[in-house]
Order: sequence, then C-alpha cells, then structure tokens
Amino acid sequence: MKIYETRTAPNPRRVRMFMAEKGLLDKAEFVELDLQKGENLTPEFVQKNPMKKVPVMELDDGACISETMAICRYFEEAYPDTRPLLGTSALEKAQLEQWLRWIEYYQFMPTGMCFQHSTGYFKDRMTPVKEWGEECAKQVASFYGFLNEHLEGRDYIYGDDLTAADINAFCAVEFAKVMKIRIEPDQLHLQAWYERIKARPSAKV
Amino acid sequence: MKIYETRTAPNPRRVRMFMAEKGLLDKAEFVELDLQKGENLTPEFVQKNPMKKVPVMELDDGACISETMAICRYFEEAYPDTRPLLGTSALEKAQLEQWLRWIEYYQFMPTGMCFQHSTGYFKDRMTPVKEWGEECAKQVASFYGFLNEHLEGRDYIYGDDLTAADINAFCAVEFAKVMKIRIEPDQLHLQAWYERIKARPSAKV
Repeated sequence: MKIYETRTAPNPRRVRMFMAEKGLLDKAEFVELDLQKGENLTPEFVQKNPMKKVPVMELDDGACISETMAICRYFEEAYPDTRPLLGTSALEKAQLEQWLRWIEYYQFMPTGMCFQHSTGYFKDRMTPVKEWGEECAKQVASFYGFLNEHLEGRDYIYGDDLTAADINAFCAVEFAKVMKIRIEPDQLHLQAWYERIKARPSAKV
Repeated sequence: MKIYETRTAPNPRRVRMFMAEKGLLDKAEFVELDLQKGENLTPEFVQKNPMKKVPVMELDDGACISETMAICRYFEEAYPDTRPLLGTSALEKAQLEQWLRWIEYYQFMPTGMCFQHSTGYFKDRMTPVKEWGEECAKQVASFYGFLNEHLEGRDYIYGDDLTAADINAFCAVEFAKVMKIRIEPDQLHLQAWYERIKARPSAKV
C-alpha cells in the first residue's frame, strides 16, 4: 500500500509515529507531496481525497482512506497482534476516544488553525481570519495548563502505557513551536512527559 | 448508568439517536442540564467533564465518559450483538471513520461554530468572532454541495445501511436550521436522504 504525505506536516507525522510504535512502518511506501506547490490539488489526488488533504492511504486494490485517525484505526484493526494504541476493553476504548477528541478539538485543531490563520501559508486557497488565529493560540495555551495538571503523577496521558493520545498531543506540541507556542517553564509535568515521548525511537521517524 | 444532557442540543441528540438505533435507550437514565443557566459549570459537573460540555455518561461505578463519539463507541463495543453503526471489517471501520471525521470537521463543527460565533448564545463564556462565524456558514453550505453529489444513487452516506455517519450528518442538518442554513432546493439527493433519515423512529427520540 501507499501513503501520500508531506514529511514536515503534523498529521502525516502522527501516522508514521503510530505505525512505528506498532512496528508497521515497512508496510507502506511513502509518497511525498509538496503542498505549497499544490501537488494535493491535482485532479488525480482529489480523486483519492476530495478534501485535498494529506495523509491519504491507498490500498493495493485502489481503495483509499483519508484522515489521520481513520488510517490509524485501519492499522489498529487490521493488525490485532501489534501493540494496541486505541485501547482494549470497551471502557478503555471509549475513555481513550474521549482523550483523543479533547486533544483534537482543544489542542491539535487550534494549533493547526493558528498556523493557517496567523501565517497565511495557505492564503491562496482559504481566508485567514487573524483574530481567530489569536483566539486559537490562547486555546492551545489553556490546554497546556490543563494537560500539565493532568500529568502530575502520570507517565502517559491515558493508562499506564503509551497510546495514540500521547502521539497526537506530542505531534501537536512539536508543531506549535512553529507559531512560538511553547510549554511554559513552570509546566514541569508537561515538560517531563514531552521529553519522555521525545526520547522514543518513534519520535524520530 | 446516567447520561447528562440537554435535550435540545445537537450532540446529546446524536447519542440518543445512536442508542435508539441499537435498541439501547433504556440502558441509561437521562439527566437534563440547563446550559444557559450554567448547570454545566458547577464544580460537581466539572469533575465529571473538565471541558464543561454535554453529553457526559456516568457508569454505575462513577467512571465518566465525555464526548459524543466516545459515548457512542462505548455502546458499540460494550453491546456487540446490537446493530453495528461504526463498521465491521478493518476497512469499513477505517473508511467510516474517514466519513465521521469529514462530517465532524466540515459540517458539524462549522455548524456549531456558526451558532457560537453568530448568535452570541455563550458570549458570557467565550469570545464570538463574527467574521469567523460567517466563514463557517460558507463551509457548511459547501459541504452540503459535496454531500449532495456523493448521495446521487445512494441511500446512505457509507455502505448499504444506516451508520453513525448518517446520524451525525442528519443531526447537523437539523441544527443548522437554527442559523437558517438549509438544504438548497436543487440539492435533490441530499433532500431525499434527509427525508429518509427523518422518517426513522430514532429521529424522534
């Protein structure tokens, strides 16, 4: 199978890190697209993903799966003997989904929207609203405070081992640095967690 | 178990409709909260959901699950003998997750943000950005066009039977009417699908 991606973008990174933690990186051929050159806007790519976003996974029979967490779910379900990253019991799966949603809505998306609305990187194809970009930066900072408190006495965001929640929050923290949004010096629990995740081999793929 | 909700809000409606399609409505006691009175801001409720949103499910042992799709996932996983609404094979689960994300990001969230940023309903606890609200309304209209084309020759959004994708898109269409965002007269496939879902008993719970 193939994964169409842009190496420097945060969503493809989440997928690679998820695959690396499961030992599945060699299952796909990675195809690089240049977003600023609009290689994701060609008719050929739009047929794979009408939303024109990366990453997209294409199976050998041509079936396509867009959306980071949909691709992750495919690997979780199709390779049940690998390290589980989306929970095992019904309660775990549900509570982890809760965390994944919180991270998505209160950290990852505002980080991404801050990027889009404050840097103007995609201004040829969307309308940046500067005031909204600033509001999003505040939301991210507020979530860092929440996460810092939550991580007191914990090594990982949910449960006793690494999950997709850690991967997603980590990739968002890394991306936020582009907009100079950083972990505050007094957020010691968040900083310790960040260094713990950063030390994993999967953080380098 | 208990579900804390607000009957008129779109997210609790998604959960009730999901439960109804599985025949599980009688599994929970529903507890009504008045959001405008701030009944979701009390210290007692914030302990159940630090994000202060409804719905929240509370199991009999006190464990809480926030976030609509996390609650739905609990029912999907904990009651495997009921009608599946999140897919069965790995590919189905992943492609359905893709649709759920598209509906969430390009329809449900912009609809919700249009509500928050254009009506000022929650202006005591957030900063409405009018220009962003207008941008969100445009995004919703654009997604209706996409969905209308997709639904040509199909009865349901994904596969041959109702899934959570239909439930989520339907609840968003219903909510959007509050902001006068409506299916266009020439969007015949979307309109036919809307009426098909609206006719189900689960649309009335």
